[in-house]
Amino acid sequence: MVKVAVVMGSKSDATLVKRCTGTLERLSIPYEIRIMSAHRTPSIVMDYASSARNRGVEVIIAAAGKAAHLAGVISACTSLPVIGLPVKSSTLDGLDSLLSTVQMPRGIPVATVAIDGAENAALLAARILSIGDCRVRKELEAYAVGMKEEVIKDDRDLISNVEGGI
Amino acid sequence: MVKVAVVMGSKSDATLVKRCTGTLERLSIPYEIRIMSAHRTPSIVMDYASSARNRGVEVIIAAAGKAAHLAGVISACTSLPVIGLPVKSSTLDGLDSLLSTVQMPRGIPVATVAIDGAENAALLAARILSIGDCRVRKELEAYAVGMKEEVIKDDRDLISNVEGGI
Amino acid sequence: MVKVAVVMGSKSDATLVKRCTGTLERLSIPYEIRIMSAHRTPSIVMDYASSARNRGVEVIIAAAGKAAHLAGVISACTSLPVIGLPVKSSTLDGLDSLLSTVQMPRGIPVATVAIDGAENAALLAARILSIGDCRVRKELEAYAVGMKEEVIKDDRDLISNVEGGI
Amino acid sequence: MVKVAVVMGSKSDATLVKRCTGTLERLSIPYEIRIMSAHRTPSIVMDYASSARNRGVEVIIAAAGKAAHLAGVISACTSLPVIGLPVKSSTLDGLDSLLSTVQMPRGIPVATVAIDGAENAALLAARILSIGDCRVRKELEAYAVGMKEEVIKDDRDLISNVEGGI
Amino acid sequence: MVKVAVVMGSKSDATLVKRCTGTLERLSIPYEIRIMSAHRTPSIVMDYASSARNRGVEVIIAAAGKAAHLAGVISACTSLPVIGLPVKSSTLDGLDSLLSTVQMPRGIPVATVAIDGAENAALLAARILSIGDCRVRKELEAYAVGMKEEVIKDDRDLISNVEGGI
Amino acid sequence: MVKVAVVMGSKSDATLVKRCTGTLERLSIPYEIRIMSAHRTPSIVMDYASSARNRGVEVIIAAAGKAAHLAGVISACTSLPVIGLPVKSSTLDGLDSLLSTVQMPRGIPVATVAIDGAENAALLAARILSIGDCRVRKELEAYAVGMKEEVIKDDRDLISNVEGGI
Amino acid sequence: MVKVAVVMGSKSDATLVKRCTGTLERLSIPYEIRIMSAHRTPSIVMDYASSARNRGVEVIIAAAGKAAHLAGVISACTSLPVIGLPVKSSTLDGLDSLLSTVQMPRGIPVATVAIDGAENAALLAARILSIGDCRVRKELEAYAVGMKEEVIKDDRDLISNVEGGI
Amino acid sequence: MVKVAVVMGSKSDATLVKRCTGTLERLSIPYEIRIMSAHRTPSIVMDYASSARNRGVEVIIAAAGKAAHLAGVISACTSLPVIGLPVKSSTLDGLDSLLSTVQMPRGIPVATVAIDGAENAALLAARILSIGDCRVRKELEAYAVGMKEEVIKDDRDLISNVEGGI
Repeated sequence: MVKVAVVMGSKSDATLVKRCTGTLERLSIPYEIRIMSAHRTPSIVMDYASSARNRGVEVIIAAAGKAAHLAGVISACTSLPVIGLPVKSSTLDGLDSLLSTVQMPRGIPVATVAIDGAENAALLAARILSIGDCRVRKELEAYAVGMKEEVIKDDRDLISNVEGGI
Repeated sequence: MVKVAVVMGSKSDATLVKRCTGTLERLSIPYEIRIMSAHRTPSIVMDYASSARNRGVEVIIAAAGKAAHLAGVISACTSLPVIGLPVKSSTLDGLDSLLSTVQMPRGIPVATVAIDGAENAALLAARILSIGDCRVRKELEAYAVGMKEEVIKDDRDLISNVEGGI
Repeated sequence: MVKVAVVMGSKSDATLVKRCTGTLERLSIPYEIRIMSAHRTPSIVMDYASSARNRGVEVIIAAAGKAAHLAGVISACTSLPVIGLPVKSSTLDGLDSLLSTVQMPRGIPVATVAIDGAENAALLAARILSIGDCRVRKELEAYAVGMKEEVIKDDRDLISNVEGGI
Repeated sequence: MVKVAVVMGSKSDATLVKRCTGTLERLSIPYEIRIMSAHRTPSIVMDYASSARNRGVEVIIAAAGKAAHLAGVISACTSLPVIGLPVKSSTLDGLDSLLSTVQMPRGIPVATVAIDGAENAALLAARILSIGDCRVRKELEAYAVGMKEEVIKDDRDLISNVEGGI
Repeated sequence: MVKVAVVMGSKSDATLVKRCTGTLERLSIPYEIRIMSAHRTPSIVMDYASSARNRGVEVIIAAAGKAAHLAGVISACTSLPVIGLPVKSSTLDGLDSLLSTVQMPRGIPVATVAIDGAENAALLAARILSIGDCRVRKELEAYAVGMKEEVIKDDRDLISNVEGGI
Repeated sequence: MVKVAVVMGSKSDATLVKRCTGTLERLSIPYEIRIMSAHRTPSIVMDYASSARNRGVEVIIAAAGKAAHLAGVISACTSLPVIGLPVKSSTLDGLDSLLSTVQMPRGIPVATVAIDGAENAALLAARILSIGDCRVRKELEAYAVGMKEEVIKDDRDLISNVEGGI
Repeated sequence: MVKVAVVMGSKSDATLVKRCTGTLERLSIPYEIRIMSAHRTPSIVMDYASSARNRGVEVIIAAAGKAAHLAGVISACTSLPVIGLPVKSSTLDGLDSLLSTVQMPRGIPVATVAIDGAENAALLAARILSIGDCRVRKELEAYAVGMKEEVIKDDRDLISNVEGGI
Repeated sequence: MVKVAVVMGSKSDATLVKRCTGTLERLSIPYEIRIMSAHRTPSIVMDYASSARNRGVEVIIAAAGKAAHLAGVISACTSLPVIGLPVKSSTLDGLDSLLSTVQMPRGIPVATVAIDGAENAALLAARILSIGDCRVRKELEAYAVGMKEEVIKDDRDLISNVEGGI
């Protein structure tokens, strides 16, 4: 059963979002992926968000840019945790997306990750699922070990290279 | 009949919004004023926005702060012109409110005025109404003359004061 | 008769502005398009703005970049609604254009849209005209339906693709 | 048993954090509260974070200001979800706290809420717990109803006041 | 005969501008002071700027806040040097005033000083006049000596205080 | 005799500065051009600035990027008007250059133009010279007429193009 | 003998700087304190910086605000390490001071600490001295222990308070 | 023996860091270079930082981007001077890296250089070493002379070119 719903505001966000779903796949977390817009299809968003918990969804990830309202609108229609992924757009370098996502008023939280932080959105969803799911916890701990080993390997390679000239 | 709907996202915006409705009153434009929240009462917002035109409303003014989604959500549910009034909040000096209101994605415009620009929101609504309403046009032109005369008077007073020492 | 006047501050804004006039054409709204500069041809701007209403213009769209004064100067010379379109320039990513357009002092409103938000400037003009013009209202509602269907189609395509691998 | 750990970087954050723990109390969520610093007591932070899951903690909230590393350091030492609460400090209006908390590199997510968004940090923790805890879900839904009713009441009071003059 | 024209956009700028004219007085430079608005009294501004050189004015100082167009509009109507003094307003800490004043497009320069830099606006005007006026040059050099001596005196007092405890 | 000194902080500013000197040439204003650095050759800068007036220089233009101190240091060593030209560098989009140039403390003014506003630096120098030099005044007025005619021609071409399709 | 020179650009920085010298005193590091200005007394600054090493100074701390050139100018005249302390001023919340201090061009480094980070400027100087001075190293390590114990005590007090109600 | 430790947070920083180590080589300063991450390998960072002084290291340079905690975490674990080198990343143009590095809370200083200021990080380390090492002092003074001569040569070349046309 799908545990994570990944929603994007526009087809143009698909390349970024694929880095998010790729990470979910690597962690073997079942997900569904949808395009829907807080502004162009608001009723679809509200219906989708309102019914998500009953369909078994446990975490929703919402990716959007500019005046990014998607995560906030979804959060307003569910009591599930909603992760906001601000997408860098063609002006202001993502600052508008970040502030529109993170600066939510009192009462309606959005768990915001970095601008274009697609992998971290997936990892945050996995951490949330790991509270009740030992398998995901083990996947995450293996992922952390993998990252650690990668850094250690990069460090060793660098030292070898330096000895021989970078 | 009410021509302008003034909506604010929270009771705390009332002091600012009063400067907006005061200007509407000065121009003798009938308005209604409401508190509703894109995040706390989203269905009320959507119903209100969807039905506004049929109730005779011609312009909607939406005041909100922080990740200010109110104007955008209203604009998504109507084809009326929607004026966004970004409210300065306790952090970031209103920059978050401004960007969340003005940086709307393609398809859903919000006519944004300055941060805390409550009078200008009212005047913009009046300019829109003035297209089809000569009385409002005359009110606006009188208002402009009034502003002009006020500046000229301030200028004269200054000159007198300077001659006598500011 | 021309309903919307589209003014740009420099020939270099033409590519962006074309996305604005293209949207007006799609909505069958008659417009005129002009190049005039608040700084290089200020008297032309003031004459143009002052006489616009009597020539039948109902909304003015002004596109300019950097210390973008065009919309503000036009707004100072008419009681028509003026839409400001901030143009991204080679430095500061459009922040200067946005603040120079939107942060108007009390008395002279400019209805500002997003940086480079050319289509939204046209749609906002159309919303304003739709108050007194049922045909435009219908065009706008068809446009909204079109956007909605496009998102729904993108969503369906995505789901099909995901089933077969994005 | 304690479900939520609330950690602050300095005694000076206590007033803000109290709004967070107050919300947890209102939702009847057991929590513990600690002061520890990523910079002054880094080993304590790392030990605390590493052992949190085994002590039964399910979510960690970390509040810090300026170059706010607390949430990031904690996230580096656990696979639990970590909520970052950026604290406004005496310069830059909280922008430094926000960026230091939210812009985490790939691999180590922090679920960031608004600058000084203490209540939302608590509500986000509750949403996370609600996945596996029906009681918390009901508390959250009651809280949302409460917020909705409060807005509706404010709206009604406003309308009454307007009829009699604001 | 008046050499420097000091213009402000609003009566509310008078306190700041007084620091500018005080400096002009200290340098014995004859000036005139006016209130006129690029937005509320645009024709007065244009007439004033266009005729300034023929009335003997040699430098114009223009103080304005928010979307500060005053200096730019004046510069568009004269070939005299125009000094822009950005005034800090109630939001955005003067950043809007600064960018609206300094980021002028090619062709129409504004000599911009710091936000609220009223004394420097006067000193810059004096430096410009000093090219053709030895008396002003001497005043400026005396002013510089005065500043230097003041710093040296502050330094000495500090040293004495430190010896006795600050 | 040289009237304008154009100084840049680094060879890498030469392309930008050439647009400045090109404009001076167009106005037939004699200039000299130098590379000297507030940080790498501070004594040269101070000697150059201190002696500039006696060598007949009337205006100094200083172009520099990042923590751009060149204009400020020059201004500290002369009573001539100093024009600061902030150069966009590889990070922060020129904001650091602008603030380092324009935000001068009380006593030492720098006449700042737009980021990369090389032509305007030249035109501002020309305006300053025009106070005492009728020829330059005429050049400037011809330049303004030229700009005006160029905009009018662009406008006419646009109208023709629109009639035939842009 | 004096090891650390603390220089401020203006008497108005004295309150902030006192927090710096207080920390030096607590670490028993001999220092001298001076007021001198990169803009008002540039030759004094250059002489002071050039001769500092020969007088036995090992580290220079320079505090300044706005377009803060003091640290950069000093760094240009010595090969000693120079610590820049950006001072928050009345506009832009210290961003101008920070960027003017830290964004130094290649060749002339300034070791910049936080805006108004007076204690850290002193501690950084002490760390530099500690390389060759065991006593300072011990002072620093005791200082670190003190900070650690303070946090631990605050943590214990908090826990006691919570048990009894904050 | 190694005097300077150069640490980067990720392999992707290697190109930038090479400009830092190249400068150290030019000054004949022995260094070591490592990759380690405050987030992925926090214990390695802490062990490395804690033991650095005893291994003879005198200065640590830490390069990192985004929410750049590396320099801060290292500084928390040693009493050596730590130089922070903020790395520009793909969004926000390095502002996040800068603020996360420089805005350290009281007690734990980081000597921050410009965004991507790799050479200056090396030069600052060399200045620190020069206090107790005459050879390094001479290298630095030769480096400064070299920079000075380079600027003077560029200046001469420019003058020759101008005489012959740039």
